[in-house]
Amino acid sequence: MMLLLMKYALCVHLIYSDIVQRSREELKAIREPNPGLKPTLAIIQVLCIVICPDFVSTQIGLNVMQICLPHQCREEEVIEEILRLNADSRVHGIFLHLPQSFLSKSVCNAIKPQKDVDGVSDLNVGRVVLGDQRDGFASPVAGAVLEMLARHGVYLFMAVLLGLEGPLKATLQFLLQNNGMMVQTHQWSSKHLSHFEVFVAAVVICQHVVRSSRRWIQEQQYQPWRLRPLKLQSLSPVPSDIEISRAQTPKPISQLAQEIGLLPEELEAYGNTKAKVHLSLLNRLQHQPNGKYVLVAGITPTPLGEGKSTVTIGLVQALSAHLKLNSFACLRQPSQGPTFGVKGGAAGGGYAQVIPMEEFNLHLTGDIHAITAANNLVAAAIDARILHEATQSDRALYSRLVPSVNGVRCFSPIQMARLQHLGINKSDPSGLTPEEVRAFVRLDLDPEKVTWQRVVDTNDRFLRKITVGQTQFDIAVASEIMAILALTDGLADMRARLGLMVVGSSRNGQSITADDLGVTGALAVLMKDAIKPTLMQTLEGTPVFVHAGPFANIAHGNSSVLADKLALKLVGEEGYVVTEAGFGADIGMEKFFNIKCRTSGLRPDVVVLVATVRALKMHGGGPNVTAGVPLPKEYINENLQLVADGCSNLKKQIQIAHLFGVSVVVALNVFKTDTQAEIDMVCRIAEASGASAAVQCHHWSRGGRGSVELAHAVKKVASQKNHFQFLYNLQVRPEKIRTIAQKVYGADDIELSPEAQAKIDHYNQQGFGALPICMAKTHLSLSHMPEKKGVPTGFILPIRDIRASIGAGFIYPLVGTMSTMPGLPTRPCFYDIDLDPVTEEIKGLF
Amino acid sequence: MMLLLMKYALCVHLIYSDIVQRSREELKAIREPNPGLKPTLAIIQVLCIVICPDFVSTQIGLNVMQICLPHQCREEEVIEEILRLNADSRVHGIFLHLPQSFLSKSVCNAIKPQKDVDGVSDLNVGRVVLGDQRDGFASPVAGAVLEMLARHGVYLFMAVLLGLEGPLKATLQFLLQNNGMMVQTHQWSSKHLSHFEVFVAAVVICQHVVRSSRRWIQEQQYQPWRLRPLKLQSLSPVPSDIEISRAQTPKPISQLAQEIGLLPEELEAYGNTKAKVHLSLLNRLQHQPNGKYVLVAGITPTPLGEGKSTVTIGLVQALSAHLKLNSFACLRQPSQGPTFGVKGGAAGGGYAQVIPMEEFNLHLTGDIHAITAANNLVAAAIDARILHEATQSDRALYSRLVPSVNGVRCFSPIQMARLQHLGINKSDPSGLTPEEVRAFVRLDLDPEKVTWQRVVDTNDRFLRKITVGQTQFDIAVASEIMAILALTDGLADMRARLGLMVVGSSRNGQSITADDLGVTGALAVLMKDAIKPTLMQTLEGTPVFVHAGPFANIAHGNSSVLADKLALKLVGEEGYVVTEAGFGADIGMEKFFNIKCRTSGLRPDVVVLVATVRALKMHGGGPNVTAGVPLPKEYINENLQLVADGCSNLKKQIQIAHLFGVSVVVALNVFKTDTQAEIDMVCRIAEASGASAAVQCHHWSRGGRGSVELAHAVKKVASQKNHFQFLYNLQVRPEKIRTIAQKVYGADDIELSPEAQAKIDHYNQQGFGALPICMAKTHLSLSHMPEKKGVPTGFILPIRDIRASIGAGFIYPLVGTMSTMPGLPTRPCFYDIDLDPVTEEIKGLF
Repeated sequence: MMLLLMKYALCVHLIYSDIVQRSREELKAIREPNPGLKPTLAIIQVLCIVICPDFVSTQIGLNVMQICLPHQCREEEVIEEILRLNADSRVHGIFLHLPQSFLSKSVCNAIKPQKDVDGVSDLNVGRVVLGDQRDGFASPVAGAVLEMLARHGVYLFMAVLLGLEGPLKATLQFLLQNNGMMVQTHQWSSKHLSHFEVFVAAVVICQHVVRSSRRWIQEQQYQPWRLRPLKLQSLSPVPSDIEISRAQTPKPISQLAQEIGLLPEELEAYGNTKAKVHLSLLNRLQHQPNGKYVLVAGITPTPLGEGKSTVTIGLVQALSAHLKLNSFACLRQPSQGPTFGVKGGAAGGGYAQVIPMEEFNLHLTGDIHAITAANNLVAAAIDARILHEATQSDRALYSRLVPSVNGVRCFSPIQMARLQHLGINKSDPSGLTPEEVRAFVRLDLDPEKVTWQRVVDTNDRFLRKITVGQTQFDIAVASEIMAILALTDGLADMRARLGLMVVGSSRNGQSITADDLGVTGALAVLMKDAIKPTLMQTLEGTPVFVHAGPFANIAHGNSSVLADKLALKLVGEEGYVVTEAGFGADIGMEKFFNIKCRTSGLRPDVVVLVATVRALKMHGGGPNVTAGVPLPKEYINENLQLVADGCSNLKKQIQIAHLFGVSVVVALNVFKTDTQAEIDMVCRIAEASGASAAVQCHHWSRGGRGSVELAHAVKKVASQKNHFQFLYNLQVRPEKIRTIAQKVYGADDIELSPEAQAKIDHYNQQGFGALPICMAKTHLSLSHMPEKKGVPTGFILPIRDIRASIGAGFIYPLVGTMSTMPGLPTRPCFYDIDLDPVTEEIKGLF
Repeated sequence: MMLLLMKYALCVHLIYSDIVQRSREELKAIREPNPGLKPTLAIIQVLCIVICPDFVSTQIGLNVMQICLPHQCREEEVIEEILRLNADSRVHGIFLHLPQSFLSKSVCNAIKPQKDVDGVSDLNVGRVVLGDQRDGFASPVAGAVLEMLARHGVYLFMAVLLGLEGPLKATLQFLLQNNGMMVQTHQWSSKHLSHFEVFVAAVVICQHVVRSSRRWIQEQQYQPWRLRPLKLQSLSPVPSDIEISRAQTPKPISQLAQEIGLLPEELEAYGNTKAKVHLSLLNRLQHQPNGKYVLVAGITPTPLGEGKSTVTIGLVQALSAHLKLNSFACLRQPSQGPTFGVKGGAAGGGYAQVIPMEEFNLHLTGDIHAITAANNLVAAAIDARILHEATQSDRALYSRLVPSVNGVRCFSPIQMARLQHLGINKSDPSGLTPEEVRAFVRLDLDPEKVTWQRVVDTNDRFLRKITVGQTQFDIAVASEIMAILALTDGLADMRARLGLMVVGSSRNGQSITADDLGVTGALAVLMKDAIKPTLMQTLEGTPVFVHAGPFANIAHGNSSVLADKLALKLVGEEGYVVTEAGFGADIGMEKFFNIKCRTSGLRPDVVVLVATVRALKMHGGGPNVTAGVPLPKEYINENLQLVADGCSNLKKQIQIAHLFGVSVVVALNVFKTDTQAEIDMVCRIAEASGASAAVQCHHWSRGGRGSVELAHAVKKVASQKNHFQFLYNLQVRPEKIRTIAQKVYGADDIELSPEAQAKIDHYNQQGFGALPICMAKTHLSLSHMPEKKGVPTGFILPIRDIRASIGAGFIYPLVGTMSTMPGLPTRPCFYDIDLDPVTEEIKGLF
């Protein structure tokens, strides 16, 4: 080092300006396409003086954040500060400008290796020794010394290291030795190190921060994921869904998150297989182009369902694990009610599932519970308010609603909002006239016109109508709050929508909202975690978002806008997001386009239309298909005529997608009873009917491998340009319902009941006329008559009544009767469900 | 290396036997006190042959687990296997006996450093270089070489390393250089390494596994936690609870878990501030002695509450953060209902709180939601069953309950249990007589005698009684399932208790249970996560369990047995677990002793009895205290007479604790209006009344620092021997209620209503006579009359009715009317609650 000291005093200026120059240019190159990025070095110090890195960083153009701790601070406080900086995504490097006594092992190792630009953590030292600096950093001083030696061709037989300790000594020693030198170390006070040395170290630190920012930026940009797929060993015959799910060990969710480019601070784990993802991701990746947006819809189904979820999962398993393309599935969270009532999970099935399927089908991360709590708080608030208004004078109500606290009375912000709504521009509670007080304290809700219902997440027939005129319960997923969760684009929007929910009318016909009840803030608080989508994985270890599950009749039946948006950013430009619409394409897809896409601003690239030979035979005139009863022989043996006739429904659904200007890939979900001739016929007719492609899928029995052909078809068609358009203009008021009925369902016309007509007038008058339409119609027929299969014609669609979900933002006409509370059958499937108390394994769940 | 090779061939045998000998002895020393421990080395290899470590390990006495992968396996499969072994607590070391081509960076770094006995991970190499092998391992070959050199006093000027790569090369090079040698490396096939070398490496690997097991065992044993307390900067005046909570940044929950000795695999994070803890911990620490068990109870409170939770939190903050003693608080989870109704959180308050308090007070980890779901599934099952039995013939019911699936009919396990219950020893569904079929299919529930109610976790007055004879709702925490959660000791026990729950009677008077409904397994599945206690932290970063919150009137009002048990193991022999009983000591403490301790088998070491000058003045004859109304002046100004008179209640509550043979420390929760003379008087009278100590506490304004005196007193008294005994024998049937009434409440006698007497006869006849008693009595007086303060005498306790929670395991006599569904006030506190959509901060929650 003696020799070195002399040598490098001479060349230090040269190196210094050289590195500054290079770093400045590199920084410029990084920032040009990322104007929002401010590469930042955080310096933790005990004295608030300008120090070298600060001076250097100014020259390079780096941001510096100085954190000054008190002289007598404890180790824990330094660590606390470091942990805070680790978690702060605006900080790209951390430098401890602290006396040696502070630099304990725990302190040095608290720094996240990616931000340890001074190379003091055990891990970074290990990486240097193993010759790997891809992810970490070597000590800047050591780097500077090596740089000087290399630059000047100096080769020393023996170097003497003076006054060095810890990571710097170890790193420098190793690097010099690695260059073939002998190294001797001596104690010497570090005060003797020259200013030059400090300068060079400072500039290397800054260089490291620039490198760290570049890595950070690279992580933000599109890149193929380094996804570790889970291997699938499919058995034949295919075991039960829960046996398949249990046989596969899921990846730790934090690992999957890392593989797809999520930062640790964007993840909130719920156990080891589920995690909520922060919405801040949308901001971090705002400049990232979206991936392709694929909608899975279906033909008109049998009551058994035609496997849209399994197609969705099979398709992403094929795209991610087999074609090695970034892809995400976005699914709805199922209601827990049917889980214990009727067989059939919502996590997909066979070898195309979300795992662990029992987590998916049960509480998940509590979103539906949060909705139940929020929904029922509104109901309790309504009844409490009616009771208190009925039993108290204006004055008593006013003194309770605006109480004197420590001698001061004031309105809460939500009460101020109500005053404004009433046109009372006063903020002093003592300044209201008796009329204004009356208007303020009395919502005057008409008990007969309360439209808000309580909910439970149980199939409980008994609660459908407890006593007419009293109260009624819906299943939790039928709550308007669920529809809001599915359509919102963030906390502020959700809070606003919750406030707009209409709970009933006052006796003089005014709509009364959650805002009027003063309950909006509490609802937002209850829903603050539910707004974050939940990350899970498929059987092949590819990512899935599960988020929101609104009813597909009285609501729009699609998973959340937020999950789709997050996924589209995460997969990046060349990736795929596959999302699913409930029911047949005439309902789920129509609402996906006209309601969900309108709200989100997203545009689909391709529709995958799921068909089965079974459903096509039904449409061709096959006998009734009923759950729990063996299938008639027509569905088990080859019957080409039934298939051919039934393809009318498939053709019609393809045409509906074309109405919106979107291309269709037909996915024939193959069952083991299907014959080759039947399969070929469907594919041929589908293509003849305008589908861009029609392929058979075997994901159920083979996983992603069985859907590779579908994945290729989707990739091809999604890359072609389409011309998406909405079916109707929001402003064309009376025509919207008719447009859907005629163009989508094939009705001759609609017929409004007097009640429905009155509601239209009422909603128009209340200012809700320009909302989109959410038809509440049976999913078992294109018409309103479940028994009419194929493509019914010559019918008039009767509109029995019209309701509104103002917070969610749609009007829903009722076509026929809709049950919003299922019941339990005689032998609910809970008879088979059990928990092994030793292994904790669940048995009998699907 | 050439020189080395010659040298060490000579001494290898000596070293070999020496290390084997030492390791064998060390292993013996470890295993003697831990007979259950089987130190295990897992070897991942591609050929299933006996290899060196296997041979050596037999000599030492190590367990070896060989994992054989197929020749053509992929990197991901190796990593998958490693991750599995990382998580397996039975494995103490992992050795990769794989060709070099498999040993990629990702593979080597996948091994948990603590199990990386071959020293191949970056982190372990870094630690070696920095001279720290406390937590990791150096490459065994390098260790063996160094050992040989040291043993033989060999000093080489230059060593040549042949055929080495990766971590071994780096580590050996560094260690040799560190010993002053020059090192040159050459490429040479590793096939040329001698068998001796392989043997020595093998024995060092085994030595490392022994060391790893020793570390593991040490982690299991009692040791003072390395807890990093959070610094408290208390402000004056004390800000609102939520402001205090928000101003403190909690530690990541995984960090707290590590500090208190939890293994990562025992933790299920729910976000970053809450985590569920696995019950497997009880098994791992089964040989660990329990810590001291401290119960916090209170005198008869005012309607405002006297601060038991804040005392509990203040005490553990003092014990852990100030006295540096391991300590845990165990709290009940609050119902969400009141959170939005009436002010006042349950997380403690001021500077003695659980944080983040909004998480504590809202959904937490979903346990109450799970209870709601389970409770309402039972209700739906009851009504569905009544409906189906009413509308179907025996034959139709039977064919639906025991359907033919693929031509086979069989009973599910829970149906077999019902058959046995009915005394029908048949397993073939076709073999039942019509009478047996009838008995099997018809529960014949009497709708008038269904005792099961639905629940919601909302204060919803309207649901109290929807229509008489129809249905009624309780608040969720009043569910028997909550009481079961609080009393169970594990999954198997919980499942059994759920099955025993009586939901009503048949028309011929038989009790009908959840087992009869066939719903037990589904309930256990719904509750499988709820059974794990939730870990949170106090304002000073000390650990808290939050688990279960049964009502304190119709149930026993104590947090869970499981949380207490886990905490007692975690704090270890010299630690403290502070748990809290609801209401006054006459109710909560009596139930804690007679019900909770009887069930758990745990014995308390000391009772902390919380008193306030305010409550004592009320008992001394002060005016009424009402929530929401300013306090009368007697409570604000000094009034020694009222205090002196009111101490009768304090004295009585001390005597109640003494009935059970447990010593009492009185904690006077000081308010700012209390005068020194009042404080001194209470402490003097308390000690004169038999309290072992009486101290004032200032945790609310100062945190743990304000409760240090209490902590010292608790430590002293808990170390003294006590003579715990139950108040009554379970078998002495008719006397149990009378004993409580007379000895605890001070009643002259009890008076049973005819209804109550009939119920006693009925329960005795059904075999429930030997259950403990859970009195449902007002908490506002020692008597049944809320207005009677102090120590009422000369009264007869009327028992209006008697009910039973058979699953929870107690009989509850009703003394007066009990509301199990609170209502919302005119101005519920949701008016003040809101969420900032940008910062996501909650406002106005307490």
